[in-house]
Amino acid sequence: MLLLIKRLSVPARHVARGTTCLLYSTEAPSSNCAIGFIGLGQMGFNMARHLRAKSKVPFVVYDLNRHAMEQFHAENGKDVGMASSPAELASRASVIVTVLPESAHVKEAYLGESGIIKGIRQGTLCIDSSTIDTSVSVDVSRQIIAAGARAVDAPISGGIMGAKAATLTFMVGSQTDSDFEQARAHLLLMGKNVVHCGDLGAGQAAKICNNLLLAISMIGTAEAMNLGMRLGLDPKVLASIVNTSSGRCWSSDTANPVPDVIATAPSTNNYNDGFKSRLMLKDLGLVSNAAKDSKTPLMLGALAENIYRHLSNDATMAEKDFSVVYQWLAKKP
Amino acid sequence: MLLLIKRLSVPARHVARGTTCLLYSTEAPSSNCAIGFIGLGQMGFNMARHLRAKSKVPFVVYDLNRHAMEQFHAENGKDVGMASSPAELASRASVIVTVLPESAHVKEAYLGESGIIKGIRQGTLCIDSSTIDTSVSVDVSRQIIAAGARAVDAPISGGIMGAKAATLTFMVGSQTDSDFEQARAHLLLMGKNVVHCGDLGAGQAAKICNNLLLAISMIGTAEAMNLGMRLGLDPKVLASIVNTSSGRCWSSDTANPVPDVIATAPSTNNYNDGFKSRLMLKDLGLVSNAAKDSKTPLMLGALAENIYRHLSNDATMAEKDFSVVYQWLAKKP
Amino acid sequence: MLLLIKRLSVPARHVARGTTCLLYSTEAPSSNCAIGFIGLGQMGFNMARHLRAKSKVPFVVYDLNRHAMEQFHAENGKDVGMASSPAELASRASVIVTVLPESAHVKEAYLGESGIIKGIRQGTLCIDSSTIDTSVSVDVSRQIIAAGARAVDAPISGGIMGAKAATLTFMVGSQTDSDFEQARAHLLLMGKNVVHCGDLGAGQAAKICNNLLLAISMIGTAEAMNLGMRLGLDPKVLASIVNTSSGRCWSSDTANPVPDVIATAPSTNNYNDGFKSRLMLKDLGLVSNAAKDSKTPLMLGALAENIYRHLSNDATMAEKDFSVVYQWLAKKP
Amino acid sequence: MLLLIKRLSVPARHVARGTTCLLYSTEAPSSNCAIGFIGLGQMGFNMARHLRAKSKVPFVVYDLNRHAMEQFHAENGKDVGMASSPAELASRASVIVTVLPESAHVKEAYLGESGIIKGIRQGTLCIDSSTIDTSVSVDVSRQIIAAGARAVDAPISGGIMGAKAATLTFMVGSQTDSDFEQARAHLLLMGKNVVHCGDLGAGQAAKICNNLLLAISMIGTAEAMNLGMRLGLDPKVLASIVNTSSGRCWSSDTANPVPDVIATAPSTNNYNDGFKSRLMLKDLGLVSNAAKDSKTPLMLGALAENIYRHLSNDATMAEKDFSVVYQWLAKKP
Repeated sequence: MLLLIKRLSVPARHVARGTTCLLYSTEAPSSNCAIGFIGLGQMGFNMARHLRAKSKVPFVVYDLNRHAMEQFHAENGKDVGMASSPAELASRASVIVTVLPESAHVKEAYLGESGIIKGIRQGTLCIDSSTIDTSVSVDVSRQIIAAGARAVDAPISGGIMGAKAATLTFMVGSQTDSDFEQARAHLLLMGKNVVHCGDLGAGQAAKICNNLLLAISMIGTAEAMNLGMRLGLDPKVLASIVNTSSGRCWSSDTANPVPDVIATAPSTNNYNDGFKSRLMLKDLGLVSNAAKDSKTPLMLGALAENIYRHLSNDATMAEKDFSVVYQWLAKKP
Repeated sequence: MLLLIKRLSVPARHVARGTTCLLYSTEAPSSNCAIGFIGLGQMGFNMARHLRAKSKVPFVVYDLNRHAMEQFHAENGKDVGMASSPAELASRASVIVTVLPESAHVKEAYLGESGIIKGIRQGTLCIDSSTIDTSVSVDVSRQIIAAGARAVDAPISGGIMGAKAATLTFMVGSQTDSDFEQARAHLLLMGKNVVHCGDLGAGQAAKICNNLLLAISMIGTAEAMNLGMRLGLDPKVLASIVNTSSGRCWSSDTANPVPDVIATAPSTNNYNDGFKSRLMLKDLGLVSNAAKDSKTPLMLGALAENIYRHLSNDATMAEKDFSVVYQWLAKKP
Repeated sequence: MLLLIKRLSVPARHVARGTTCLLYSTEAPSSNCAIGFIGLGQMGFNMARHLRAKSKVPFVVYDLNRHAMEQFHAENGKDVGMASSPAELASRASVIVTVLPESAHVKEAYLGESGIIKGIRQGTLCIDSSTIDTSVSVDVSRQIIAAGARAVDAPISGGIMGAKAATLTFMVGSQTDSDFEQARAHLLLMGKNVVHCGDLGAGQAAKICNNLLLAISMIGTAEAMNLGMRLGLDPKVLASIVNTSSGRCWSSDTANPVPDVIATAPSTNNYNDGFKSRLMLKDLGLVSNAAKDSKTPLMLGALAENIYRHLSNDATMAEKDFSVVYQWLAKKP
Repeated sequence: MLLLIKRLSVPARHVARGTTCLLYSTEAPSSNCAIGFIGLGQMGFNMARHLRAKSKVPFVVYDLNRHAMEQFHAENGKDVGMASSPAELASRASVIVTVLPESAHVKEAYLGESGIIKGIRQGTLCIDSSTIDTSVSVDVSRQIIAAGARAVDAPISGGIMGAKAATLTFMVGSQTDSDFEQARAHLLLMGKNVVHCGDLGAGQAAKICNNLLLAISMIGTAEAMNLGMRLGLDPKVLASIVNTSSGRCWSSDTANPVPDVIATAPSTNNYNDGFKSRLMLKDLGLVSNAAKDSKTPLMLGALAENIYRHLSNDATMAEKDFSVVYQWLAKKP
């Protein structure tokens, strides 16, 4: 399709929904084609860097933290714009990507007094890559759409490593296939997998369902490994058996929580450089909100959330990879 | 190695530990080389059939249920012996395989008044393929060894299907490598994977640790799938996302508990022909015994056991594949 | 203030318990002294009836359901005013009582487009007897106070029976002792215990902490009674032992979940006329919100919430007294 | 009846079942009337001291630890006999009291090679005040009865304090009322409440059901108190509200786990001098054994056991009163 568009040399104003300005790399960038990026935290900064480098259209950023904006500007070129507010950014961009920590920040950035909605242009595509409450995500997207623009949710899997290497996975919820396709074109500049999960909110829903199962299987792996070791099994032998049996899971074969079982697992690196316990706890909070709203009983999931809450009351463990739950469990009698 | 031994035609008394009488298929079977098999239930019957057909040595069976013995005899040849007790069987065999339901049966069969230990010959190898308490298994094995024979634990993974197709996996605990090797030679006639897990009891330990993680990840998968569906996700889409993400596990990618997600999963076949909930409950009982003995805290594991106990109080669900926990969870509000 | 009233020479013996404006019964009622009541559901209707009958000041009501207002008007006197909105009601009252189902209703009634805050008079005392999120309660109260009025939270214990009989208990959070005292005077017309729990939000906090423990001890009682009965104990004997031992609790000695152990318990009346499971579930939702906000780990509490969620997916059980969890647990194998 | 026996001066052999030798305090003690006591640990030593002092019949003790026997002998009189085995003790006594730590010790003391059953006399009453598995208790009692003697289970509530002050409560299971009556006469010398719970094993069952509920309500109280305090409530105020509301329980009003709420609670005394966590864990182990045997699902109970197991892996907490679970939970974030 990209090829087709180029061959036909359609004028920008005729470009069908679902394509992106950035395709016209031979033409001079116009402000119609600018990309806005809000949220230059550890994830966002790295993602924006890739997007800026590969998209070759005007680029404008916003962050509450002015220092982060200036650093991005300094590192990524003098032509990077720095907006004074989400509203102003929205007035200058036709694609907006947001990567923010929590539901409240997303609500504020999109719907607040100087939020995106106050400046947004007709047809602009908003891609929210924050991981937030499904219900908030759907509500924000609907308001943006009601204002004449477009919105998809596209939460991320892959962590800071993935953001740096542009190997992230995005789980996307969109109202139309063309919204998905256009979002996908941009997201592939920052990651390598973009999955269409369904309607608005489906990206959020898929992400938290995955992380629910992830938390449960990690604690389960920690329990099983700990039990086996106390019964005298060698942890490598036990892991190798489980990993070729019905107990196999990512938490066992890739991120085994017992140090030195898997050389590349965070546990082997003193539980560093992984997915922090407090972030898993945050996602489990989104899970339990969604479960409450949808009257869905969780048993293991509810307990998993509270185990991570208990564990995260230890300031050190809160900052470690979530496989540190093995240490929490395995204290010697 | 099998070939080598044959060519050398070493006398039986010189055969190294770790080989088996059954190798001498060209020689007349001698009672020294007989295999005894105790426990002709659904698993044992099918296993014994393969062992009998492939080992070509005298074969003698025992089961409390005389009818099962007679049926085996009728179906598998007139030269199959029927013992009057485990002790008598032991007096006629140099390799004994046992496949029994619970710890108490194993204790009785090995150490009871007319148990194996009362008739066992020096050097006989006992292979217990029951899934029982690790502590009982170790204790029984030690008593058999103290009586001058040899013992390994070799619990099974793979179910009745695997028993019929001789595709079982065996997890073996043994005192010596040669005991393991000899057990392995026999077990490969009934299955296709034989894993050395460690010292006596290690087979039992490995199996219950695997099944602990299996139960947890199955319930976790059911919770995550149910939540996702209530949030509007298509179950196949959700499963495909999870299965390429950090939530992937055997319970999600092979035995997904939501019907029609995986064509070959028991859930798609009305939860039939899988691993029954009540058998999972039994294994989780072994888990909690071992956890209690070793002072190992389980959180998700303890809850999983009690979820399966609650579920198994429904007579229908007790007989269904353990992925039926999805139905238990997913009742509509 | 009480002293002031005394100085004005109102004979003490004529002063009704704990009243405010309504003390001046010899004076013509003025609109300054009117009581406004919002929320004529099952609880509120009965509470308002008592307050109306005992306070002898102008009375004005509001409910989204116009039929409920008209019924109250018809049953409680032609001089009961019917407001067109919370704002209008607020413009006519100096004390306002609200009894609403959920946080969203309270936010709307107080802070919405035609909410109380739009019509409120300086110094008016708002008494919110809804059971809602502690954080929402504090936020609403603070906004009312910032608008020049006063606010207390005063959630209720005692149920519809208590509302009919005016035997309710109120748990009050207030900024000042005098706010508490004035609220107390009114609340005693609708109940018999009014407890000062602390600052704004403390009434909500106390109520949900009590109900957290209540849910846990009820499920615990159900588990202990069920276990004892399966072990052969007579439930009355077991209850009598527990009730004089360290296991005693309200759920065992007053509302025992096993039918016929306590004659007056809802369980004995087919789990009717008690505190519905779905309402306990609602309160446990408030508990888990508060726990999340305050990073407080719950273990049994989180599980209790999800047990009530599972149980409430059965439409019949949802409407039964929450002791019906015994039936949920005790299904026979 | 007691009076009647005295007046008639019936010879010992005619004494009806259900009476006790010790009634004949005016007569010289005969060996027919001796009391045997096995188990001189912290509980047993104190209990035996009271029984010895108040019963005025020959007294013979046994403990595996010879030093404990000698100390008892030294402190309680030269005429206290020291048996060489339970069998020998049994040959010298007509009433036997046992207070032992675990099921295995009781099995050994009663049924072992030199166990009570090897020396027991016809009609001797065995009172086992150990807290052990209900199934083991019933089995041991039945074997003693089959040997021509009598047996009751009579586990204890009240702790070391109660043993010292002779204020213990005994929960008794017996086959006949007269066995209960005779046991009661002796138990009242060591405690003040003796409750007939039902048939053999009923004492054990009642005790563990009580302690199951106790553990759950203690953790529940700790969760509710911790939540309330994090929400800003004063713990004394919260406790006073709960204790007059539906959350009230022994763990809240008598042994509140937050220090300084209840002056006499172990928590206020640095969690000393109460019921140790590791002993609560032991009892919860008996609970889960009984639940497994009777296919009774526990949810909160299973989690409670594992919380105490996790906590008891901390050597200090294991020795503290079980209300220390509040400290386990309340670690600050």
